[in-house]
Amino acid sequence: MATDVTLPTEVLPFDPRRLDALMDDAGLDVLVLTSKHNVQYMLGGYRFFMFDYMDAIGLSRYLPILVYPRGAPEKAAYIANPNERYEQETRGFWPATVVAKARGTTDAMAFCVDHLRAIGADRGRIGVEAGFLPADAWTLMTRELGSAELRDCVEVMEALRAVKTPAELSLLRSASDRIEQSMLETFAFVRPGQTKSQVAETLRQREVAHGLIFEYCLITAGRSLNRAPSAEVIRDGDILSLDSGGNLGGYIGDICRMGVLGEPSAELVDALAEIEAFQQAARTPIAAGRPGAEIFAAVADLVSAPREGSLSFVAHGMGLVSHEAPRLMADGPIPYPAPHRDRPLAAGMVLSIETTWQHPRLGFLKLEDTVAVTETGWEAFGDGHRGWNRAGS
Amino acid sequence: MATDVTLPTEVLPFDPRRLDALMDDAGLDVLVLTSKHNVQYMLGGYRFFMFDYMDAIGLSRYLPILVYPRGAPEKAAYIANPNERYEQETRGFWPATVVAKARGTTDAMAFCVDHLRAIGADRGRIGVEAGFLPADAWTLMTRELGSAELRDCVEVMEALRAVKTPAELSLLRSASDRIEQSMLETFAFVRPGQTKSQVAETLRQREVAHGLIFEYCLITAGRSLNRAPSAEVIRDGDILSLDSGGNLGGYIGDICRMGVLGEPSAELVDALAEIEAFQQAARTPIAAGRPGAEIFAAVADLVSAPREGSLSFVAHGMGLVSHEAPRLMADGPIPYPAPHRDRPLAAGMVLSIETTWQHPRLGFLKLEDTVAVTETGWEAFGDGHRGWNRAGS
Repeated sequence: MATDVTLPTEVLPFDPRRLDALMDDAGLDVLVLTSKHNVQYMLGGYRFFMFDYMDAIGLSRYLPILVYPRGAPEKAAYIANPNERYEQETRGFWPATVVAKARGTTDAMAFCVDHLRAIGADRGRIGVEAGFLPADAWTLMTRELGSAELRDCVEVMEALRAVKTPAELSLLRSASDRIEQSMLETFAFVRPGQTKSQVAETLRQREVAHGLIFEYCLITAGRSLNRAPSAEVIRDGDILSLDSGGNLGGYIGDICRMGVLGEPSAELVDALAEIEAFQQAARTPIAAGRPGAEIFAAVADLVSAPREGSLSFVAHGMGLVSHEAPRLMADGPIPYPAPHRDRPLAAGMVLSIETTWQHPRLGFLKLEDTVAVTETGWEAFGDGHRGWNRAGS
Repeated sequence: MATDVTLPTEVLPFDPRRLDALMDDAGLDVLVLTSKHNVQYMLGGYRFFMFDYMDAIGLSRYLPILVYPRGAPEKAAYIANPNERYEQETRGFWPATVVAKARGTTDAMAFCVDHLRAIGADRGRIGVEAGFLPADAWTLMTRELGSAELRDCVEVMEALRAVKTPAELSLLRSASDRIEQSMLETFAFVRPGQTKSQVAETLRQREVAHGLIFEYCLITAGRSLNRAPSAEVIRDGDILSLDSGGNLGGYIGDICRMGVLGEPSAELVDALAEIEAFQQAARTPIAAGRPGAEIFAAVADLVSAPREGSLSFVAHGMGLVSHEAPRLMADGPIPYPAPHRDRPLAAGMVLSIETTWQHPRLGFLKLEDTVAVTETGWEAFGDGHRGWNRAGS
């Protein structure tokens, strides 16, 4: 059980003072974290290997729970699966209390409730991740903790994760480099007659061969704007877009590059150069202390220029989650508010910047880049091969 | 929106009469399915590629929802992510209503509630998967559907999935074969001085190269009983166990095989032969119509014989989920009841059979097999290389 010894903050894999301040602002006494990414973040990169891909088992599912009381890391707990005892033995977990006995959602939450009672945190304001807390565990919590007030803590954790450490930046850089390399190798394998599914499978193979966990591949071919892998056949002269996410230790690499079977027409060269101009213009105002809004201002004239088809420009934070803080889009792929747009960027934030042109005659044209904010500017990860990559070469 | 035309049942990828009967038994009017595996099952093997690995995005997460009203497949709906329009265009979905507009949990559930109201299913008994329904979506449901009665439907879906079709059996067979082949190739790569993590990574690479989605690898080396991949170094003379799950189209291959660096001692040969005797004895009573309890009776004398260390015998159904119906264990890795133990097995059920010997001097010894029930007996998948596989050869 929890000890009375205060844990030195330097052994924690996150900044407890920052977390405590965020919890204080949000009026939270204790966090009950149940998403894989936030549990991983709090445990310094640890994600249990047996349930990395899958959750379901038997009539229930794996549910890791990390309990963190504000200002008292020595009273934290990790509720785990019995097989995580192997990991406890091999690498250890920083929480003084580890209950590696949970086989499903409700027994996991019952252990959590026991711990909350043991540390006197069962009557306060408890932060939960409502999108990652199963209804049966939630029901048990609300029944057992009638005196507690349950609030969502997703934004607290998103804020905590927004500025990356050098170790996190290193993983993001390496993930991006490996995605880029995998894409080059995939373009080299492409031949007329292959299907989009085959090309996506090649990319998956290459990403895994480079040590990544493959997540997905969006792919277009020819003039089609459909981005799903499918039995659609790729023909000589087709253009291709590869937009793929894969992670290294949970940190996502996600870029988009263009290929062509043959030589691109002058019009294709010009169109991709126009997208490249957006992508480069968007970087120019990036530096610590400057507001994210300047990124959008830098491309505003380009976006509003008349052109064939539709063009979209997107920028958003990324890390353990493919869209996270800083939140810069009010109307992007995720319809959440953009409260961070006018706040200063901070060194260590990582942005995904995407320009997409759905061209009615030429097809789907896109570049997506990963750009880290530095004190004096920015550093782009996996940043090469931005023009037309020749397939089969 | 839903049409009034009755959908021919032969276009459905599952047996609607069986599902309707199961729902009737459970007193359910409509299902609201939110787990990836059950949505996949109802959509004939479809799982959206972008969120196959990951759920989180922005402040929320991907939440597919399949609505199925008893006896009225023409009123079913699929609530999907906007990017699933690509899949709708490419392959189509059988539900007449497809709402590909949901970006998170609560907007997905709001679309679901709209549909339940539109088809008049908002006041009945609604089956949900409480372990796979996020608390925020659940809260919205209970608030909006005050007249409905929400019940868990996990057992209904587990029962529906228990007997596999020939197409499902084919995927399970192929997944097992590929895991076996990947293990052979991995044993061949093993050298003294490699770490357990390196060997697990080799197996992951091989499984992916064989077209599988890798899920996990449990690994032991030498006399240790610790099954986590780690920096532990493998030495000449060590024994190895590889126990890995990987899937093909969602259907899991999961077997365990043994390897050795060098030649096994006579004692090791005898010990593995004893485990093999269990595994073979357990198969003998398997056939359609015979109760699962006979499997345990067949090994009871062997299990109770005195021996060094501890031995465990496990049998359970498997398919899209690694432990599913038929539920044969009351005290296995998953502490759910075993109501199927005395029921007759049916042709098309698939069993995982596992014998584990934690030997204090020899180390961790295990075989795990996948055995499908047939009309006249059984068929084992990926069933070779059951003895000591020589590493590095």
